[in-house]
Amino acid sequence: MSRFAPLPEPPYYAVIFASQAAPSDSTSDDYGATAARMVALAAQQPGYLGVESTRDASGFGITVSYWRDEASIAAWKADLEHAAVRDAGRERFYERYTLRVAKVERAYGWSR
Amino acid sequence: MSRFAPLPEPPYYAVIFASQAAPSDSTSDDYGATAARMVALAAQQPGYLGVESTRDASGFGITVSYWRDEASIAAWKADLEHAAVRDAGRERFYERYTLRVAKVERAYGWSR
Repeated sequence: MSRFAPLPEPPYYAVIFASQAAPSDSTSDDYGATAARMVALAAQQPGYLGVESTRDASGFGITVSYWRDEASIAAWKADLEHAAVRDAGRERFYERYTLRVAKVERAYGWSR
Repeated sequence: MSRFAPLPEPPYYAVIFASQAAPSDSTSDDYGATAARMVALAAQQPGYLGVESTRDASGFGITVSYWRDEASIAAWKADLEHAAVRDAGRERFYERYTLRVAKVERAYGWSR
């Protein structure tokens, strides 16, 4: 499965999530299971377009999810806020994070 | 030095660069030197706000640079297009990449 998200025609939205994992849980099976569940939940949401995610050995990660419009993000956020999985993630897995919502205006890809 | 970029008041712009490193060069000193030079060059550009970057052991990386406005990105792109460093990077270091330009509309951070 490709690590790259699709490249739909803009405009659409990106949620840019940068995070520093807490030392104890950053590479745990529990973290991996929770992250996988979050992606599975997102993929069921209307307007979900894809996700790209990576994290280095120091525990610094960036995940970008892509959404059709702001309503899709709002619905996902409302769902998240009531989901134990997100609250558990924040308290257990992260030292710090930032989240930015951005409207993608243009995009392109290149491959060898 | 923090791996997180600052959180200025929106709106501003994000350039989301996802890439799969070529196997041979993904962790080479040459790649690291080139990446560091790219960041140093970007940081000198007017309108540069910061950068966040990470790459996992498989070579899949995400770098997000932040810019004050579209003019800043255009100037950086024009500079890049004539710089050997970018062309060398594309041909030598990457199997594939995508680049998206997005307008950040809202943002927040959390820390323990």
